Amino acid sequence: MAELVGVWKDLAERVRRGERRAVARALTMVETGGPDAQALLGWLHPATGGAHIVGITGAPGTGKSTLVNALAAEYRRRGRKVGVIAVDPTSPYTGGAILGDRIRMQGHHGDANVFIRSMATRGHLGGLAVATTDAVRVMDAAGFDPILVETVGAGQSEVDIADAAHTTLVVLVPGLGDDIQAIKAGILEIADVFVVNKADLPGADQAVAALRGMLMLGARERARWQREAGAPTWTLPIQETVAADRRGVADLVDRVQEHAAFLDASGLRAAIERERAEYQLRDILRAWLLRDLLAGLTDGGLTRAAEAVAERDIDPYTAATQLMATRDT
Amino acid sequence: MAELVGVWKDLAERVRRGERRAVARALTMVETGGPDAQALLGWLHPATGGAHIVGITGAPGTGKSTLVNALAAEYRRRGRKVGVIAVDPTSPYTGGAILGDRIRMQGHHGDANVFIRSMATRGHLGGLAVATTDAVRVMDAAGFDPILVETVGAGQSEVDIADAAHTTLVVLVPGLGDDIQAIKAGILEIADVFVVNKADLPGADQAVAALRGMLMLGARERARWQREAGAPTWTLPIQETVAADRRGVADLVDRVQEHAAFLDASGLRAAIERERAEYQLRDILRAWLLRDLLAGLTDGGLTRAAEAVAERDIDPYTAATQLMATRDT
Repeated sequence: MAELVGVWKDLAERVRRGERRAVARALTMVETGGPDAQALLGWLHPATGGAHIVGITGAPGTGKSTLVNALAAEYRRRGRKVGVIAVDPTSPYTGGAILGDRIRMQGHHGDANVFIRSMATRGHLGGLAVATTDAVRVMDAAGFDPILVETVGAGQSEVDIADAAHTTLVVLVPGLGDDIQAIKAGILEIADVFVVNKADLPGADQAVAALRGMLMLGARERARWQREAGAPTWTLPIQETVAADRRGVADLVDRVQEHAAFLDASGLRAAIERERAEYQLRDILRAWLLRDLLAGLTDGGLTRAAEAVAERDIDPYTAATQLMATRDT
Repeated sequence: MAELVGVWKDLAERVRRGERRAVARALTMVETGGPDAQALLGWLHPATGGAHIVGITGAPGTGKSTLVNALAAEYRRRGRKVGVIAVDPTSPYTGGAILGDRIRMQGHHGDANVFIRSMATRGHLGGLAVATTDAVRVMDAAGFDPILVETVGAGQSEVDIADAAHTTLVVLVPGLGDDIQAIKAGILEIADVFVVNKADLPGADQAVAALRGMLMLGARERARWQREAGAPTWTLPIQETVAADRRGVADLVDRVQEHAAFLDASGLRAAIERERAEYQLRDILRAWLLRDLLAGLTDGGLTRAAEAVAERDIDPYTAATQLMATRDT
C-alpha cells in the first residue's frame, strides 16, 4: 500500500513538473476513474486552480474544432501553454477520439506547450462530466492555462460542461435562423461570449442583428435577475470570426480575457469555484451511495426488482422504496 | 391521507379512460416530480406497456419538428391515437415550450386523438430524463400509441432519450458532410432507422451514399457484436423524406412498424423493458440516497465541504469520503 502511494505521488509530481508522458498517463487514468485515479487527483489537487477554463459549445456544423485550433494558435502566439479537451458524448469509441486528435493536432504537432486530448468514453464510473472535470484538473496541475473544453451538441451535456468552465463561448453560424429562436432561452443561460463563426457566409449580418435583438430582449430579464441576486453585470459580447482564416480570433481571445478579468474583479471566480466543488461532490456522492446500496443487496437484487417493474407487478417508486429499506436490515 | 390516495386514484382512473384534462393535469404533475407524482404513477403503472415509443433525434436545422408533425398525421390516417413529447433540455422556460406547442398544434388542433406536450423544465427533481420517462408513462396509460419523443441535439441527453425509446430515428439532412463523420460512432450506436430529411435539397444522393458507405463499414463491427451477444440482427434502413410535403413519410412509418415487429419477434422488446426499468430504478435510488445523506448533515455541511475543496484545503474524493462517513455516526 505504501508502495502504491509512492507510485501515485511520484506520478503526481511528474505531472506537476509538466512532463508530457506523465500527463498523458494521468489523463488515461482519470478517464477510466476508480480508486487509483482518485488517489492521483488527491496529490494533484493542491496544484490546481491556476487555469482559466474556456468552454466552447455549439451545434454540429458551426466549425467549433477549427475555432478551437485557431484559439490555441492565438494563445500560443501570446506565450501561453494551452490545454485542449474535446468532449464527444455520442462517441463510445476511443478510435474516433484518436482520429480526432490526429486531425486536430495539425499545426500544433511537436509543440510541447499544447496538449490535446479527446474524451469519448462513456465508460467512466461517474459519467462523462466527472471524467472531463478530472481531466481539466490534470491539465491544470500540469500548468496548462487556458484549458479549452470543446463539446458537441445542444443537449444537457452542454449545460454540464458550461458548469465546469469559467468562460463559455456559444458558437453560431449564419443561417441557423429559426433554430436560434428554438434554443434561445438555453443559450442565454450559459453563454458568456457569443461567436458568429463563418462570418464570411451570406446572412452573417442578419444573424448578428437577430442575435443582438434577442440579447436586448433578454438583457432586461437578465439585468433584473442580476440585480435581484446582487450580481455584478456582464454584457454579453458578440464576436464575428472566420476561424479557417483566423479572422477575428485575436479579438475573440481579447473578449475571453476581458471576461476573465471581470470574474476576478467581481469575485465571481471564487463563487464559481465553490459552486463547481459542490456540484462535483454531489456527483461523487450519488455514485458512491448507489454502489454501497447495490453491494448490500443479494445477488441480482436490482435485476429482479427491474423485472418485476417491467412485468408491471410493481411500480418503480414502490420498488425503489423497498430497495432503500434494505439499508436498515 | 386516505383522502389524498383517493384523489390520485381517481385522477389515475380518469387518465386511464383517456380524459384529456386529466392527462394534461397528470403531465404537469410528473413534470414537477415529487411524492404526489410518484403516487399517481403507482396507480397508472399497471396500465402502461402498451405503447410503442419512437424517439426522433438529430441536430438543429434537420426539420425534426416538421417530421414529427407529418408522422403524427400519418399515424392518425391509420387510425392510431398519437402522443407527442418534445424535449428541449436547453430551455429552462415553459414559455418557449408553450409557444412551441402552439406552433406544432397546427393541423392537429381539435383532434382528440393527438396529444402534444413540450418538456422544457430543468426543475424536475430527478432530471429531464426521468421527467420524460414519466410523461411517456402517463400517455401510455391513457392509451396513446405510438408516443413520439422528439429531442434536440447531439449530446448525452440524446443517448438518454434513446434509452427510453423502442425505435430511435436519427434525422440527417444533405450537406452535413464532415459532421456525419464526427458523430458517426455515436449515431451508429443509437439509431434504428436513419432519416435523410429535406431529400429534395442538392446533395441528397451523396448524403445517402455516404451514409450507406458508413453503415457498411459499421455493419461488420455491428454484426460481430450482435453474433457475440447472441442478438438477432436488424439491418439499419435509410429512409428519404421531404417532411414539409409529407413525401416518404408513409414509407417511414412502414419502417418503424417493421422495427416494432422485429422487436416483438426477437424478444428484444422484453429485454428493452427490463433494461429501462433497471435504468430508472438506478436514477431514482441515486436521487433518494443523496437526499437522505444531505438530510443527515448539519446545516450547510455540504457547502462547507465545497468551500474547503475550492480553497484547496482538501481534495474532492477525500471530502466525499468524510461526508460518506457521517452515515455511521
